[in-house]
Amino acid sequence: MGDAAPFDTLANAARWMAEAGYRGVQIPTWDARCIDLRLAAESQDYCDELAGTCREAGVEITELSTHLQGQLVAVHPAYDTAFDAFAPAGLRGKPAERQRWAVEQLRLGARASRRLGLRAQAAFSGALAWPFLYPWPQRPAGLVEEAFAELARRWRPILDGFEEEGIDLCFELHPGEDLHDGVTFERFLAAVDDHPRVNILYDPSHFVLQAMDYLQFLDLYRDRIRMFHVKDAEFNPTGRAGVYGGFQDWVDRPGRFRSLGDGQVDFGAVFSKLTQYGYDGWAVLEWECCLKHPEDGAREGAPFIAAHMIRRPERAFDDFAGGGDPDANRQLLGLTR
Amino acid sequence: MGDAAPFDTLANAARWMAEAGYRGVQIPTWDARCIDLRLAAESQDYCDELAGTCREAGVEITELSTHLQGQLVAVHPAYDTAFDAFAPAGLRGKPAERQRWAVEQLRLGARASRRLGLRAQAAFSGALAWPFLYPWPQRPAGLVEEAFAELARRWRPILDGFEEEGIDLCFELHPGEDLHDGVTFERFLAAVDDHPRVNILYDPSHFVLQAMDYLQFLDLYRDRIRMFHVKDAEFNPTGRAGVYGGFQDWVDRPGRFRSLGDGQVDFGAVFSKLTQYGYDGWAVLEWECCLKHPEDGAREGAPFIAAHMIRRPERAFDDFAGGGDPDANRQLLGLTR
Amino acid sequence: MGDAAPFDTLANAARWMAEAGYRGVQIPTWDARCIDLRLAAESQDYCDELAGTCREAGVEITELSTHLQGQLVAVHPAYDTAFDAFAPAGLRGKPAERQRWAVEQLRLGARASRRLGLRAQAAFSGALAWPFLYPWPQRPAGLVEEAFAELARRWRPILDGFEEEGIDLCFELHPGEDLHDGVTFERFLAAVDDHPRVNILYDPSHFVLQAMDYLQFLDLYRDRIRMFHVKDAEFNPTGRAGVYGGFQDWVDRPGRFRSLGDGQVDFGAVFSKLTQYGYDGWAVLEWECCLKHPEDGAREGAPFIAAHMIRRPERAFDDFAGGGDPDANRQLLGLTR
Amino acid sequence: MGDAAPFDTLANAARWMAEAGYRGVQIPTWDARCIDLRLAAESQDYCDELAGTCREAGVEITELSTHLQGQLVAVHPAYDTAFDAFAPAGLRGKPAERQRWAVEQLRLGARASRRLGLRAQAAFSGALAWPFLYPWPQRPAGLVEEAFAELARRWRPILDGFEEEGIDLCFELHPGEDLHDGVTFERFLAAVDDHPRVNILYDPSHFVLQAMDYLQFLDLYRDRIRMFHVKDAEFNPTGRAGVYGGFQDWVDRPGRFRSLGDGQVDFGAVFSKLTQYGYDGWAVLEWECCLKHPEDGAREGAPFIAAHMIRRPERAFDDFAGGGDPDANRQLLGLTR
Amino acid sequence: MGDAAPFDTLANAARWMAEAGYRGVQIPTWDARCIDLRLAAESQDYCDELAGTCREAGVEITELSTHLQGQLVAVHPAYDTAFDAFAPAGLRGKPAERQRWAVEQLRLGARASRRLGLRAQAAFSGALAWPFLYPWPQRPAGLVEEAFAELARRWRPILDGFEEEGIDLCFELHPGEDLHDGVTFERFLAAVDDHPRVNILYDPSHFVLQAMDYLQFLDLYRDRIRMFHVKDAEFNPTGRAGVYGGFQDWVDRPGRFRSLGDGQVDFGAVFSKLTQYGYDGWAVLEWECCLKHPEDGAREGAPFIAAHMIRRPERAFDDFAGGGDPDANRQLLGLTR
Amino acid sequence: MGDAAPFDTLANAARWMAEAGYRGVQIPTWDARCIDLRLAAESQDYCDELAGTCREAGVEITELSTHLQGQLVAVHPAYDTAFDAFAPAGLRGKPAERQRWAVEQLRLGARASRRLGLRAQAAFSGALAWPFLYPWPQRPAGLVEEAFAELARRWRPILDGFEEEGIDLCFELHPGEDLHDGVTFERFLAAVDDHPRVNILYDPSHFVLQAMDYLQFLDLYRDRIRMFHVKDAEFNPTGRAGVYGGFQDWVDRPGRFRSLGDGQVDFGAVFSKLTQYGYDGWAVLEWECCLKHPEDGAREGAPFIAAHMIRRPERAFDDFAGGGDPDANRQLLGLTR
Repeated sequence: MGDAAPFDTLANAARWMAEAGYRGVQIPTWDARCIDLRLAAESQDYCDELAGTCREAGVEITELSTHLQGQLVAVHPAYDTAFDAFAPAGLRGKPAERQRWAVEQLRLGARASRRLGLRAQAAFSGALAWPFLYPWPQRPAGLVEEAFAELARRWRPILDGFEEEGIDLCFELHPGEDLHDGVTFERFLAAVDDHPRVNILYDPSHFVLQAMDYLQFLDLYRDRIRMFHVKDAEFNPTGRAGVYGGFQDWVDRPGRFRSLGDGQVDFGAVFSKLTQYGYDGWAVLEWECCLKHPEDGAREGAPFIAAHMIRRPERAFDDFAGGGDPDANRQLLGLTR
Repeated sequence: MGDAAPFDTLANAARWMAEAGYRGVQIPTWDARCIDLRLAAESQDYCDELAGTCREAGVEITELSTHLQGQLVAVHPAYDTAFDAFAPAGLRGKPAERQRWAVEQLRLGARASRRLGLRAQAAFSGALAWPFLYPWPQRPAGLVEEAFAELARRWRPILDGFEEEGIDLCFELHPGEDLHDGVTFERFLAAVDDHPRVNILYDPSHFVLQAMDYLQFLDLYRDRIRMFHVKDAEFNPTGRAGVYGGFQDWVDRPGRFRSLGDGQVDFGAVFSKLTQYGYDGWAVLEWECCLKHPEDGAREGAPFIAAHMIRRPERAFDDFAGGGDPDANRQLLGLTR
Repeated sequence: MGDAAPFDTLANAARWMAEAGYRGVQIPTWDARCIDLRLAAESQDYCDELAGTCREAGVEITELSTHLQGQLVAVHPAYDTAFDAFAPAGLRGKPAERQRWAVEQLRLGARASRRLGLRAQAAFSGALAWPFLYPWPQRPAGLVEEAFAELARRWRPILDGFEEEGIDLCFELHPGEDLHDGVTFERFLAAVDDHPRVNILYDPSHFVLQAMDYLQFLDLYRDRIRMFHVKDAEFNPTGRAGVYGGFQDWVDRPGRFRSLGDGQVDFGAVFSKLTQYGYDGWAVLEWECCLKHPEDGAREGAPFIAAHMIRRPERAFDDFAGGGDPDANRQLLGLTR
Repeated sequence: MGDAAPFDTLANAARWMAEAGYRGVQIPTWDARCIDLRLAAESQDYCDELAGTCREAGVEITELSTHLQGQLVAVHPAYDTAFDAFAPAGLRGKPAERQRWAVEQLRLGARASRRLGLRAQAAFSGALAWPFLYPWPQRPAGLVEEAFAELARRWRPILDGFEEEGIDLCFELHPGEDLHDGVTFERFLAAVDDHPRVNILYDPSHFVLQAMDYLQFLDLYRDRIRMFHVKDAEFNPTGRAGVYGGFQDWVDRPGRFRSLGDGQVDFGAVFSKLTQYGYDGWAVLEWECCLKHPEDGAREGAPFIAAHMIRRPERAFDDFAGGGDPDANRQLLGLTR
Repeated sequence: MGDAAPFDTLANAARWMAEAGYRGVQIPTWDARCIDLRLAAESQDYCDELAGTCREAGVEITELSTHLQGQLVAVHPAYDTAFDAFAPAGLRGKPAERQRWAVEQLRLGARASRRLGLRAQAAFSGALAWPFLYPWPQRPAGLVEEAFAELARRWRPILDGFEEEGIDLCFELHPGEDLHDGVTFERFLAAVDDHPRVNILYDPSHFVLQAMDYLQFLDLYRDRIRMFHVKDAEFNPTGRAGVYGGFQDWVDRPGRFRSLGDGQVDFGAVFSKLTQYGYDGWAVLEWECCLKHPEDGAREGAPFIAAHMIRRPERAFDDFAGGGDPDANRQLLGLTR
Repeated sequence: MGDAAPFDTLANAARWMAEAGYRGVQIPTWDARCIDLRLAAESQDYCDELAGTCREAGVEITELSTHLQGQLVAVHPAYDTAFDAFAPAGLRGKPAERQRWAVEQLRLGARASRRLGLRAQAAFSGALAWPFLYPWPQRPAGLVEEAFAELARRWRPILDGFEEEGIDLCFELHPGEDLHDGVTFERFLAAVDDHPRVNILYDPSHFVLQAMDYLQFLDLYRDRIRMFHVKDAEFNPTGRAGVYGGFQDWVDRPGRFRSLGDGQVDFGAVFSKLTQYGYDGWAVLEWECCLKHPEDGAREGAPFIAAHMIRRPERAFDDFAGGGDPDANRQLLGLTR
């Protein structure tokens, strides 16, 4: 459904997506037009109905998104005001209560995911150390360690809840969050003792904006990748601006999101690696482009993804060599003389 | 003198530098072992003595540095505690007084620079909007404009003071400061109505860490570049981390400072462009390397810089074509038929 | 219509183009099968009829081309014979009369453009200094200045005529012309005192053949670009030949024109930048390919262009941050303590 | 000492090397002019004398090399004749006896290394599967597994011997050996159950010839790298030949060894990474260049290496931030409200 | 038909291919379901019938493939067992007889090609020196020369047979064969005294796997290229493995075959050069992909190839300059004064 | 001696060069302070004296330069005035006489070269077709052929004179000359029927300015390269200018000459290839730099060249494989079974 779908009901959105060629829809759980999260956590009937509405329209529910609630699990005070917009009106200006609400939302999400027969759920990690990303002023010793220890304290009970429901929590690694690259993911993983439910929503666009090697990322973290956003981006630094972007708007930043195929992500390579490594989750379009009309971007997205899906062969193209005869092998190796 | 010179007196430092082959020394005005800034602003004798001490040791004073005071002209509260270390002990925890002190320091600096016969002085801009460098959370309309308007309000009187003293204020464009690239420099320049004393301390290392084109920067901003830090850096992003560095220490960050010649800055091209564009200021080594012992870095610096200096020829290598005869020229162009 | 359209009447050509999917046609004013330029300058009825013929066929007239006449405004004698082919038979061998004719043609063109309701008109600049492009033999001092002064003398009255008609004169920057890159465009612009009617027909293929950065060109000259040729090219230098091409034919030159999509121009980036900068003129295919049959090239051109057009969104994808509240902004910036 | 040192006695060689500026010498154990391996394994006096001879000349013994003996631990019959040259004359044509001899040599080497106070010893792995490196003809299932199982059977007792002596066995990963890249090293490591004495002699030149990323190799295998050959190479494929080299001689192969600084290895980056990762072994020049006279290559080697050595600083350049105060850290993170 | 077509009869295969959009079929002569080679050599009626079967189905026979028989003309004993699978059962274990059979097969092929009205036939060269591709152990002097002399002795009579039938023998340059790049092709050509029937089957995928410049290859060997396999591949070396691939399976090797458009071959450039150089043979898809289902690869192949075919124009786009008048030319060159 | 040596006598120049570390001097034959060309052609004593003067000063005469006289063998009228500066005053304005004088000069040069014991002599080719390098206006058929036929007519008698004296004529391939790249050299070579005295002065700087592959050039034309200019250059195109340079001065052109080591020529690779291919002529510095003082450039040149010279080894580093035994080789190849 994307972050900005201009639809009034889930049914209408699902219908539009099916017509555009999509086979699934990710549900933003903070959007009351789409889902009543508390109800979904409690009522199997409601969940069946939700899934039925989508299936009737021609799409499956792929995952629930709890990005914004995850964000509110940890907020540095510098951003308190700005992030209050994501919280229920009554909780604004009350960071502690806002945090409690966010934690509960995530647990409800896990329960709802289970009822909907899903395997994975998306979230942001929130951030405590983000204002200190650049080492100026110098970071005092222990600052980062304390930040991740606190993050771990907050997320561990949530993760245990996901374990109970059998759902993978997938963090979208994203600038602005304390978990924004491989190193910070590893740091968090260590802080929660390799909790098996800590996983990754892989979105290459955020790595393009960090000038990271998003293909090598797949080699390194393939075992923890359980969700995938198909989102494009480009990074064109000049003599005027680079990665920090000079406080410009999206359209003028050297790093910016683009519609699928208009950016620099080599999706041929991304889908190839995911296929090679046996990824079996969904490929979910996310709509954000600074230049192109969203209707055009959305319409082009489904065939773009379809053209990149790879059906694995049943057997290797050269497996007619047979083999398995140990004696013959030892003879080839010269071990029988 | 560098940010971390382990010297007890200016005379000793100057002597060490002269022996290492340096011809000048930049004075950190916040270091009482080097200079009494208030006295220097007021007493010509003291200034003559300072310059004499250096000259006797074999080096000139190149410029005064007021980086840290500039930083304190504008501090977002998220960094208040961290930056208090740069202020006199009595002002810590009192941001408004700290700011007044910083403003006065800059004015004293300009006066001292004039007494020392210098042309330019270095500073950081400070930062109000830095926590919002990445557009997540979304920046509300007008936020950046307000930040630069406030910066301009604070710096304009300082700049007018520099105008009175005939000194160029050179901002070192640096991550962590609101003035950190070409775009933010232009934005500030517009906010102070192209004040003639707003100039640039060009340090390519900070642009390497932003993945900027530091050579094109010279093409675009050559008219405002009045100081130059010869500092090297490298940026080697991987699948694990990119420009934000994952909160790692300097030695492990993909972007890190290096000793001269050990990084990625193409100093041959930098010195060529500066020569081409007629830059006539100093080339000042700054010592910061995450891997190499500072004594080695400092010792290698002077011959490195000397090897890159370019003496311009008196005349072009092919100016034996003579010329200047308009009739002959028109004949060559076929305009005489 | 392209430079080499094998059509007998404008109506037939327009019909063919509409069927191929084009929405407009650029008229070569030197081709009597397409237009009677003098009549068009004088008669509104004739112009209405021309436009009607095209509109009926399904295409609009995009602009008039006066490339060849512009070429004849300034010809170095070395090329006199070769360029005589573009002049009326009676003027061959008479360079001065040829030049007067060319000047008048351009003025007629501007008048015709106005009658046709157009905004821009294309031309070459002609060349006086081109034989001296490489500084061997050494160019005597003042040679280039004199060439551009003479060019300015010839073009200024023409430009004033365009001002009267309200038409932008767009020079196609092109090897063989004195205006062939950004530097020569700036030189000419200065020589005519920044005349507002001096503009650019942007054709990236000519910049590929000069090994120029055709994308940075858009950043630098975006304010003066009023026409756009969608033409592809490639440049593949080897150990045998480079930019000068060794006097080889087009197909064997390292730099050569190609059909759209077969060359090296990154049209995705070109259309993105033009969209970003608000270009609102036409995207005009020009037919020239050294390898592919022109019918194939023409047929592929219209869908290629259509696939690259970008419809701008009505609002930014993340403008739900609202904003505009100055107090809230000052609070975010820490200015309210 | 290098593979091709034209010296008659160890003392002479050591003296030559000390004069050329080297600080150590690696001993080829198969060269009777340098060492009597059996004696060295048994006699502490002899070892002390050897070390004394070198020390007197001005160099240390860095490690023993048992490359050729390691090669003979596993030889595919296709290469039997060719490798017989490395075996004692009496064992030629008798592969089984040759293998037993090689195994014993390695064990003697370990004992001698201990007596000499060394930590690491170099060897090749030998090869059984090398003729099948390209999957044509198709490799039958199990072939590679059997080859590595056999290799493990042969090397495990040797490795246990090294464990007893406290010496690291360092395989030089090298084309022609079954252990020639990271993947084959991992495969072998698994086959010997992660034996702690299986380590790597890192020689970037062999990775250049395989078109591998020799810097990423350091990131991945840093924990097992205990020896380092400073050897340069270049790989310049063309339309005539590529990695397989077309059976040409070294000088004409696209991939070829070069003297230090004449090839493509970025030794600045190699030494930086080794320093970053705390490598504390020797940097050993190996002499092989297809173009340059070995005396010149050897003479240039010592200053080349010296110029690349990096002395680590005692403390980070920016550690004046102090820190370690948990309360202050929590305040910076906004956790104290 | 490809190497792995799962079809029971030629008619069925031809029909499937015609429906998929292919216009021709290459016949694997070792596959009895497709052709009886001996009969085809002897009977014109049978050949007419074969061609008719295909033509009725909608495809032409493009060439005969005798790859496997060519392979068996020269086999190093290390591969005897592995290659026996390609020989008739009765000849296994009898290398000399197997070789005689292979020679005869090639001659039969040439005769059959002539009867089918074909111009070219494909084969592998076989290999004697392949185990010695890397110069470790060092190759004794004369080894490679002897290998090619022996190859020439075996192939020359076959080539003379092809001359008699008027058929070009096209070697597919391929790792594992002694003829695998340009250098080895030249070496063989010299050994058979530039025999006019020695030609090349150009397959860029094998050059990608050798890191060769497959486009420069076309410049150098264009006169001998008479067949063309449209096959894609990619080579992505890492810090773990490079060109030798670490004995991994196809899907995990850095160099691997891919379906058309999924690899790194720049087919736009390949088809452009072939068109430029007047290649007039077939463009034959070969099916091998380590990741994609072969049905998908085959289905995508025909439109991929069709989109890359280039129809040459009848005349150059700028030949309206006319010319041919020697006097005019001399005038332009300034030779008439 | 370079093009711009500010010296009054050959003896002084030779002495300066010897002191700067040069071992040879190239003599500009048009400079009367250096040589009386007619006298040198006729008098062996004079030649011995010249050589003695140089040898005494410490340098050898490397070659004679007849660049400017070669230029005057063929001049297109557009450049008549400009090139008159290179002719004796009495011949200015008389192109036919100037050409005759130039031809004679070249013949005198060859005779003088022989008397001086030299092997090669340098020249430019002159130009007739250069104004038509870009195919606009379109080149009429036969134009280029006529230009090269005329060039051949003029140069053939000169070449025959060189044959008589046993001297190689080496054309410096240079923009502005009709012989400026590999293709034009081949064209000329064909026009003079592969005359054995037509050779090349290889100067990579001119290929950098043409964006050519100057290393591949060595692979292709190595047999005809008999002279070598060590001259550096750089080419940095932007969005403002490219290869044509926009009529700017040298210092502002994207392509410009630089002092050795300051440009983009990879001299390590150039010297490697020349060594590999057995080049045994001189490496001659040419002084031209748009940025650096010529004294500095000249002083740095000699050690730069010395550091790049490569002394070939007496034998290959791995030739201990011995070999040459045909039986052993056939056994390795498996031919003895």
